Amino acid sequence: MTFEQWMRSVLERVETALDHYLPGEATEPATLHEAMRYAVLGGGKRVRPLLCHAAGELTGARAECLDAAAAALEMIHVYSLVHDDMPCMDDDALRRGKPTVHVKYDEATALLVGDALQSQAFVALTSDVLAPAQQAALVRELALASGSVGMCGGQAIDLASVGHTLTRTQLETMHRMKTGALLRAAVRMGALAGETPDAAAMRSLDAYSAAVGLAFQVVDDILDVTTDSATLGKTAGKDAKDGKPTYVSIIGLDASRALAAQLRSDAHAALAPFGARAQRLAELADLVVNRVS
Amino acid sequence: MTFEQWMRSVLERVETALDHYLPGEATEPATLHEAMRYAVLGGGKRVRPLLCHAAGELTGARAECLDAAAAALEMIHVYSLVHDDMPCMDDDALRRGKPTVHVKYDEATALLVGDALQSQAFVALTSDVLAPAQQAALVRELALASGSVGMCGGQAIDLASVGHTLTRTQLETMHRMKTGALLRAAVRMGALAGETPDAAAMRSLDAYSAAVGLAFQVVDDILDVTTDSATLGKTAGKDAKDGKPTYVSIIGLDASRALAAQLRSDAHAALAPFGARAQRLAELADLVVNRVS
Repeated sequence: MTFEQWMRSVLERVETALDHYLPGEATEPATLHEAMRYAVLGGGKRVRPLLCHAAGELTGARAECLDAAAAALEMIHVYSLVHDDMPCMDDDALRRGKPTVHVKYDEATALLVGDALQSQAFVALTSDVLAPAQQAALVRELALASGSVGMCGGQAIDLASVGHTLTRTQLETMHRMKTGALLRAAVRMGALAGETPDAAAMRSLDAYSAAVGLAFQVVDDILDVTTDSATLGKTAGKDAKDGKPTYVSIIGLDASRALAAQLRSDAHAALAPFGARAQRLAELADLVVNRVS
Repeated sequence: MTFEQWMRSVLERVETALDHYLPGEATEPATLHEAMRYAVLGGGKRVRPLLCHAAGELTGARAECLDAAAAALEMIHVYSLVHDDMPCMDDDALRRGKPTVHVKYDEATALLVGDALQSQAFVALTSDVLAPAQQAALVRELALASGSVGMCGGQAIDLASVGHTLTRTQLETMHRMKTGALLRAAVRMGALAGETPDAAAMRSLDAYSAAVGLAFQVVDDILDVTTDSATLGKTAGKDAKDGKPTYVSIIGLDASRALAAQLRSDAHAALAPFGARAQRLAELADLVVNRVS
């Protein structure tokens, strides 16, 4: 199977799993469920689900176990986008090429969509396709990665940084929490959905995730200044306009490109202990660095 | 031990548990953690933690297992208050006798405090004081009760109902989701934190919770029109002002009082199979109906 074929088959599984793990549009309250599905389905790069499925290949995880984990990860990611786009946060009108939830519906609905998607992620993780001990382990990974010492904490630091000059170290801390924590959880949860990996394997996976997570952000910052809104599916040039510190604003465009290439090498190096089973993870590191949107 | 002594000892445990399961104020990002602790600690009736501890007496649950469940329940409850108080929802400035989080801090912080408290609840539930299978069972109870078919769903129906005339049945559906689901989860989670209860016991507990949950709301509606803001610790008369349907507006004050008394009897009746072990649950039903704030 080529990487493109593998990716297409995983993306199809993920879409089916998200549809399965989200309440139907006919379930009351219908508008809330319609809005949750509007936010989640039919869009997005599904980076976290792809990482989760790729990591599951290392530990022989069953596809339906990975589906539950991948759906949960994507629901957390989407809830964070819905809340981040709200007027009191980034105030953005475009996401994944569509009007954001608070624009399409209203602010109160956007707030509830995000809140309910977070709960629904934990509902998905306690699906009985996973053994109870796995459910518990995956819930803990996801909750820690999402909360105040992970994604939400990074978002808080990001908000506090607007208009301030951050050092590169401060910028990295912020991104490690804001996006890195959930990407890391995606990889760990994929691995934990199969035969329990040993501590050394988890350390290698964490090193891989650290490199990929940082690369993801560096490339985001590059695309924000080099690509138009239509290609990105979100408002381009927004970070610069909002006075947000980025890799490009701190180290410049060329050094940012060199950094992304270096991080790709680091990610590949971290996968060495796994041999050929890590092929999909290696290809995903390439995808993260080479993407154009 | 009298009920008052029991309650005092549980409330003390709950405060200690919340302090334990919340990240410290020195943990980065410090402002977010400070705001989370501001929202959660030192206030509130702690009805859900009390129900959880009382239900745990039926199944011999260990106190430290109940502490984790109670802390998680209260974090979910508080996150919902923080978000409900935001300008795009109820826009309230006073809660538990203190300025609401978005007033004391700002809207973005309130949004993140709520989001992070929800994650933290699931972190608390995966504490290793609970067996992995218990963690998984408790997570599922809490996630379903919190999400779009529970608390968030009820909130969505509530918002959609402003300015509309609801039937008593529609009002009950809304409250069963908005507040009832989490109260029911509190009772179930307390029981599940001990020896696994049988299906008949869970049905009796659900009947108890349905009565107490509804009584709680009826009394809330009575207090909203009979009590001042200082006693309530939140803005009195707000529902009437916002055009929200309440029991008092639909069936009147006297019928509401009679209904509350009937629901208390129903709650007591549901506990009959448990005998003396259900004493604290019975007393809590009395407390819910007799409270003055």
